[in-house]
Amino acid sequence: MTPHIDSNRLWQSLMDLAKIGATDKGGVCRLALTELDRQGRELFVGWCREAGLSVRVDAIGNIFARREGTDPTRRAIAMGSHIDTQPTGGKFDGNFGVLAGLEVLRTLNDHCIQTAAPLEVVVWTNEEGSRFVPVMMGSGVFTGAFGLEHALVQKDIDGVSVADALTRIGYAGTQMPGEVQGGMFAAYFEAHIEQGPVLEAHGLPIGVVPGALGQRWYNVTVTGMEAHAGPTPMQQRHDALLASAHLIQRINRIALEHAPHGRATVGFMQVSPNSRNTIPGSVTFSVDFRALDDDALSAMDAELRDACTTLEASDERLTIQVEQVVYFPPCHFDPACIASVREAAEALGLDNMEVVSGAGHDAVYLADVTPTAMIFVPCRDGISHNEIEHAEQAHIAAGADVLLNAVLRHAR
Amino acid sequence: MTPHIDSNRLWQSLMDLAKIGATDKGGVCRLALTELDRQGRELFVGWCREAGLSVRVDAIGNIFARREGTDPTRRAIAMGSHIDTQPTGGKFDGNFGVLAGLEVLRTLNDHCIQTAAPLEVVVWTNEEGSRFVPVMMGSGVFTGAFGLEHALVQKDIDGVSVADALTRIGYAGTQMPGEVQGGMFAAYFEAHIEQGPVLEAHGLPIGVVPGALGQRWYNVTVTGMEAHAGPTPMQQRHDALLASAHLIQRINRIALEHAPHGRATVGFMQVSPNSRNTIPGSVTFSVDFRALDDDALSAMDAELRDACTTLEASDERLTIQVEQVVYFPPCHFDPACIASVREAAEALGLDNMEVVSGAGHDAVYLADVTPTAMIFVPCRDGISHNEIEHAEQAHIAAGADVLLNAVLRHAR
Repeated sequence: MTPHIDSNRLWQSLMDLAKIGATDKGGVCRLALTELDRQGRELFVGWCREAGLSVRVDAIGNIFARREGTDPTRRAIAMGSHIDTQPTGGKFDGNFGVLAGLEVLRTLNDHCIQTAAPLEVVVWTNEEGSRFVPVMMGSGVFTGAFGLEHALVQKDIDGVSVADALTRIGYAGTQMPGEVQGGMFAAYFEAHIEQGPVLEAHGLPIGVVPGALGQRWYNVTVTGMEAHAGPTPMQQRHDALLASAHLIQRINRIALEHAPHGRATVGFMQVSPNSRNTIPGSVTFSVDFRALDDDALSAMDAELRDACTTLEASDERLTIQVEQVVYFPPCHFDPACIASVREAAEALGLDNMEVVSGAGHDAVYLADVTPTAMIFVPCRDGISHNEIEHAEQAHIAAGADVLLNAVLRHAR
Repeated sequence: MTPHIDSNRLWQSLMDLAKIGATDKGGVCRLALTELDRQGRELFVGWCREAGLSVRVDAIGNIFARREGTDPTRRAIAMGSHIDTQPTGGKFDGNFGVLAGLEVLRTLNDHCIQTAAPLEVVVWTNEEGSRFVPVMMGSGVFTGAFGLEHALVQKDIDGVSVADALTRIGYAGTQMPGEVQGGMFAAYFEAHIEQGPVLEAHGLPIGVVPGALGQRWYNVTVTGMEAHAGPTPMQQRHDALLASAHLIQRINRIALEHAPHGRATVGFMQVSPNSRNTIPGSVTFSVDFRALDDDALSAMDAELRDACTTLEASDERLTIQVEQVVYFPPCHFDPACIASVREAAEALGLDNMEVVSGAGHDAVYLADVTPTAMIFVPCRDGISHNEIEHAEQAHIAAGADVLLNAVLRHAR
């Protein structure tokens, strides 16, 4: 019988870590590789040493805390996430996945449970990307999505490089990412708040995450003809905003036609000249398409371009430019790891459902090189990246229990 | 037989006046009550004195140039417009109406034609409102739309008042507006470029203007719920921009349902937080409704509010605020004056059509107190308030000929 994690100890660790960079509104501002990040790392590392874990740091600052297994031939099973936050971030995003991993190891210690495979808890450097880009930097370097040198030379707005910032806080390891833990992991599990409203809407404590949506982002520019709102009859207009309104509705329908995983968002829009009595001459807006498979993303792309072509053909003075600016392929997690998460939840009597990750996570990069899955727990109103981000202690504990049970299925 | 005006003389006067404040791009920058405005006024007044006209200036700086009639009991027939321009204005807006009036009087002189009623050409102060608001200041004070004192204390961005600016350029008259010309006019005619594309599209030289559209302007704020574009399924969104796109299309249809004079423009829009991977939480946009009668404007108002109510009812997290910020009543010009314009055009063999004024003009205020009509001529691509504003000499001459013939119908 697998024991339960210590809900109060996990919650207290989350609250203690959240004091470092705490904001007046109850959130956390702990940007990557700052003095506050150093303090957070020190707190975590201290807890790890108290738990008898060995701690190593790689050249991009990723922290690996290891509990040895009984079988020296086995590769480690890893858990983790990040502890850097958005400028107006919350207590749970990232921090939960790291401290749930630590709590799993503490619980095994408490109950003197040995595993055959070694277990590791990883803190990935700079997941948020608020201070340095690219985002998911530590896991990206670790998995080879981009090079160490590329990451180290990136600078913040004050001109401080990642390399310098790592040195300043004492987290510039000497070994290459991937060398420090002695070869790739056998599996990777990341617990995380959902950052969306699905689990809360269904009243369920656990989300089994089959993968993460692929993304195509665009800049669309609609050019019509600027004219006076008063003297220009409706029939003689070439209104770039009216055309854009038509496209926004079409873009929304494209996502609905690719239910349940198709998503489309127009989040940014700039109207020119943006004067209340001038018919808009041009409008630029963003499109964010997401889907769980590449065929769907490609179809959505074709449908967007088709809608633009059709609209252009309806008005000889209207031109529409569509430029794709971002592409992330869809990510499908490992079936065995996904099954372990589901079976762990079922064994614990925790109601659960599949929830696809709409956002990027370190796990998405890890999935490129190792069998991976994620565990979601609900967050209030689906809100994150916000100081009011909140998760219930019971859900936090349930997520950590599922993590413990899933990991043991692979480590025994 | 009524003579024709001197097309070359009128054109040359327009080109000479356009030299004062000429811009590199072929336009004119001659803001109200500046040194350049003074130079423009002096040029006009000099031409008036050469033509034997008596010139008076009222307390808001309106210039009245008078040619006496043979019947001392008759009230004057007036023509006019303005000679101030937008910062990047053209050669024709306003200037054409003033110089066409002067050309009418020059032509009567040339042909020794006496009229029973006196004739006056008026330069209205600060029609554009680019330096001082309210717009149409001189005609507004003259007709009592607002008070002289209210106008005189208005300041430009440098803190210079209208009163001080009038004194500096020597155009602060001592008499009240309305006193200087010895009672109200018997009629007022204003020739103007159309500032829209209708005449050009129809290939016609003359527009007979039955009135000016009334206007209702609004600020609309749509509030939904900000959320991450990735993790939020389509069914759980409260997208303020998608709702706004729906409203923009509905607003457009409202205008089409009130054809031919109903007009609707959404020219300004601000999206919040305006981030490409965040579902917009709120959107503010402007609505500019125009129509030729108040019943239509009221119906459009009701249809806008109804559309908002219906949309709100479709989503419990969506709220829409509609605030009316501007109202100008529709203006119907005098049937006899309109008929005179049409008959003048017909007598001259000039093809014409009715073109409603979508914009405000001094004539709209004059229509409150005196029988009024306007004459439109085409401008290239319907463009005005722009340095590339252009009108054909043949159209300018045709418009002035119609003005002459229409005025004579009332002055004989």
